Amino acid sequence: MPIPIRGPLAIPFRVFGITRSKMNPNICTICERSFRYVKKQQHISTTATILFADIRGYTNLSERMDPIAMSEIVSVFQDQCARAIWARDGIVNKQMGDGLMAIFNFPIKIERHAEAAVRAALEIQRRCGAALAELAASRGEAAADAPRVGVGVHTGQVEIGEFSTFRSDFTAIGGAVNLAARLESQAAPGEILVSAQTAEETADLMAGAAARSFALKGIERPVAARVLYASR
Amino acid sequence: MPIPIRGPLAIPFRVFGITRSKMNPNICTICERSFRYVKKQQHISTTATILFADIRGYTNLSERMDPIAMSEIVSVFQDQCARAIWARDGIVNKQMGDGLMAIFNFPIKIERHAEAAVRAALEIQRRCGAALAELAASRGEAAADAPRVGVGVHTGQVEIGEFSTFRSDFTAIGGAVNLAARLESQAAPGEILVSAQTAEETADLMAGAAARSFALKGIERPVAARVLYASR
Repeated sequence: MPIPIRGPLAIPFRVFGITRSKMNPNICTICERSFRYVKKQQHISTTATILFADIRGYTNLSERMDPIAMSEIVSVFQDQCARAIWARDGIVNKQMGDGLMAIFNFPIKIERHAEAAVRAALEIQRRCGAALAELAASRGEAAADAPRVGVGVHTGQVEIGEFSTFRSDFTAIGGAVNLAARLESQAAPGEILVSAQTAEETADLMAGAAARSFALKGIERPVAARVLYASR
Repeated sequence: MPIPIRGPLAIPFRVFGITRSKMNPNICTICERSFRYVKKQQHISTTATILFADIRGYTNLSERMDPIAMSEIVSVFQDQCARAIWARDGIVNKQMGDGLMAIFNFPIKIERHAEAAVRAALEIQRRCGAALAELAASRGEAAADAPRVGVGVHTGQVEIGEFSTFRSDFTAIGGAVNLAARLESQAAPGEILVSAQTAEETADLMAGAAARSFALKGIERPVAARVLYASR
């Protein structure tokens, strides 16, 4: 039976804390809760695609821009990213100021999760590119000076669970998550760095994408990735 | 009137979504919600102390350790940090895998928030040092090889608000938040890096703490900080 997560029919469910998931408004918190009860001690090990995105040069920006302008930039970024991720059935698992982490393939199963994540990454760049340029223009700044976003995408084995006895929000951890985060940290403004593992699953989308190799902090071997740009 | 956030009296409140805050179990979600309704568009600008902590070398660890061991380490870390932060009336605002961000002075006002944060940082190092060594010993590893934690603390002006129209969890942003994060990223295992601004407010705790200067990504001038260690 589908659970009403919007409208008056949803009210009785709220007594039990069942409401729309903050991570994706198309699922309810049962997805998160059932997981909690069933898997309290164990963690699920699954293949997923992890996407990290952030505003490049944000620390530098925050040194010279006023706080209101900075918060507008963060809001536009978070909202545009969430729309792009949800449109591909991913969840916004973590928002950390000027950055976020999304999971594709949990709790919503996606057959082609690598492709879903890369398409979401392209959409993030398109949406953020347009919206942040518009915001800059509204402040009388040149659109070319608008902040840009960096994205990193990697597919691999992750541990999904709740890694805190106090707090019940699930997340993904493991080497694959860190690799996605490290890749993202190397993305230049406007770039999407796609790991070799993700690129292998998304050959159609990699036409013309340059190959680059990265020395990433904490990872011994160089990491091969493809560099992707969204067409405006 | 105090709101019951535990026990049977708390049940009717749950209908309205009023429950214990995940960020600090001693406050209820009204703290978060009242803020949301009153300050939908505006953000509060306030002085706060921001604390970042993470497991040093986690990416490297996750390359050679099995996922179950990794998730145990993360759980121990998150739980011990939360206890230390709550004991000083701070809130655990963000948990990101092997890291977290805490805020001192919002929503719980703390007169000496710099001191509360530094004391929490010392307690984090003590608790994590002991608990992670114990965990290593239980796996038959040398306690000296146990992972260690890095902490960064900075006091300054931050913007507090909800920087996403979809998701209603508040956070702090601004240059001061990024400085705390950047300091933390420079902390060696076992170290607490305390910014000059925080150190000024906590002179009593800085006796014998070495001064060091850091070139931080995105910040033009070198940043002065004190290096603190917890006694075991």
